Amino acid sequence: MKLFRYGPAGHEQPGILWQGQHCSLAHIVPDFNEAFFADGGLQRLHSWLQQHGSSLAPLPADTRIGPCVARPSKLVCIGLNYADHAAETGAAIPAEPVVFMKSTTAIIGPYDEVMLPKDSRKSDWEVELAVVVGKTARYIAEADALDYVAGYCLHNDLSEREYQLERGGTWDKGKGCDTFAPLGPYLVTPDEAGEVHQLPLWLKLNGELVQNSNTSNFIFNIPQVLSYLSRFMTLLPGDIISTGTPPGVGLGMQPPRYLRPGDVMELGIEGLGTSRQTVIAYQPTPA
Amino acid sequence: MKLFRYGPAGHEQPGILWQGQHCSLAHIVPDFNEAFFADGGLQRLHSWLQQHGSSLAPLPADTRIGPCVARPSKLVCIGLNYADHAAETGAAIPAEPVVFMKSTTAIIGPYDEVMLPKDSRKSDWEVELAVVVGKTARYIAEADALDYVAGYCLHNDLSEREYQLERGGTWDKGKGCDTFAPLGPYLVTPDEAGEVHQLPLWLKLNGELVQNSNTSNFIFNIPQVLSYLSRFMTLLPGDIISTGTPPGVGLGMQPPRYLRPGDVMELGIEGLGTSRQTVIAYQPTPA
Repeated sequence: MKLFRYGPAGHEQPGILWQGQHCSLAHIVPDFNEAFFADGGLQRLHSWLQQHGSSLAPLPADTRIGPCVARPSKLVCIGLNYADHAAETGAAIPAEPVVFMKSTTAIIGPYDEVMLPKDSRKSDWEVELAVVVGKTARYIAEADALDYVAGYCLHNDLSEREYQLERGGTWDKGKGCDTFAPLGPYLVTPDEAGEVHQLPLWLKLNGELVQNSNTSNFIFNIPQVLSYLSRFMTLLPGDIISTGTPPGVGLGMQPPRYLRPGDVMELGIEGLGTSRQTVIAYQPTPA
Repeated sequence: MKLFRYGPAGHEQPGILWQGQHCSLAHIVPDFNEAFFADGGLQRLHSWLQQHGSSLAPLPADTRIGPCVARPSKLVCIGLNYADHAAETGAAIPAEPVVFMKSTTAIIGPYDEVMLPKDSRKSDWEVELAVVVGKTARYIAEADALDYVAGYCLHNDLSEREYQLERGGTWDKGKGCDTFAPLGPYLVTPDEAGEVHQLPLWLKLNGELVQNSNTSNFIFNIPQVLSYLSRFMTLLPGDIISTGTPPGVGLGMQPPRYLRPGDVMELGIEGLGTSRQTVIAYQPTPA
């Protein structure tokens, strides 16, 4: 299944890509959230579709697509998980996964605008494969880890490099700004995601291909990441684990190149869909 | 008001300390959660109590007390925010707040058992004053920051030092283990919390006073912390911001001293109440 959420920000409803069309599931499932995944919602939906899929009607073409899952209990990321990317940022290849967290208030839809933080000078892009957790995971073995996956989605792990690296403390400071986590378009269930360790992924900045790699270049693969993380924190259904970015970020360029208002990021992962965000300058959010 | 939550873990209901007794608010308010704080719940509850407080009946004495607020969207912490503590851990006094995040799955009640992670050898205690956010905060000024506070509570920011400091990446790895965030007993509203920059706080390990300080020793005070954080991530109603720990943690002892099964931590902050946790060995959680 290729699932998505649509409608106004903060009031999204569930939908599905069905026979090539965006269709509503608003009266079928409440939302793609923790309770849905915990309660076998994916399996029930799959069964429902076998019987009733033909009754689905397409949504209007101009429907806004939101983040593909509801706000999770946490958004955890792996840093420096492509050997080439570690090299470009000047970091050593890590001996074990580097872990950081993004505030879930950063999550937006795949075609929403990315807003630079106030006075930001070093905002940067990062195409990533994100895993959506399907059931509660504590101390899980690598061999079992894929049983804990609800699906996969595209994530742009936006990063303010000054906040992340030059302001003291941990990376979290530069990762959780509003709009810094465009998610989706689709939550793709494992049966339709292909071989997730062989997926091309890329990001174009203003039409120029700047990231172009393959998940076969992971330092730590998905079972390793999930097993490892589950030793340090319990993963809940609907949680999002982002697996790191390949080379080609602005921080690694000579000289470094950062996002400016008007820049357009187009990114994708084969089988998971593409997204597109336009960068805008900081503007206060209405209270 | 001194608010708390009671009942079985994961199914807590709201309550209030009223005229010295623990009383249920289960039929008065749904929970102390994001929606409650966002929607003026504290003010409505305060009004209700003026009229109806005398109708409250005490709970049984053996009622379990849970974490004083429902699972927040995030639990953000400030590191090294007491000058003496920075010195004892060998860290420089930070030029700006050190920020990290704890998985919210770590949250437990104030008298629950703290379980050592599997194979953990360096679990440590940290008494802290935590702030509960009352309304959405983005780029707030220090002068306005206290308007965004719903209340204050006691927090034991348990930390696995090997995971935090010796495993690569950020501190988050050593902060979010299950049971690593006992919260409460009470969410104390600002009108009853006293002068929050003049509160004694302490922690006893097996009866021995190991942490004994005062929030007057903050490097960054509460308005500074809230204003600063709100530049990097949006704070939501019900979010928990923990303000750092004073000297006396196990990591700073010569030689370092870490938690063992059977150890008892008793901690408190004047005006916010006390908590007590017994340490137990790792045991698998039933699926």
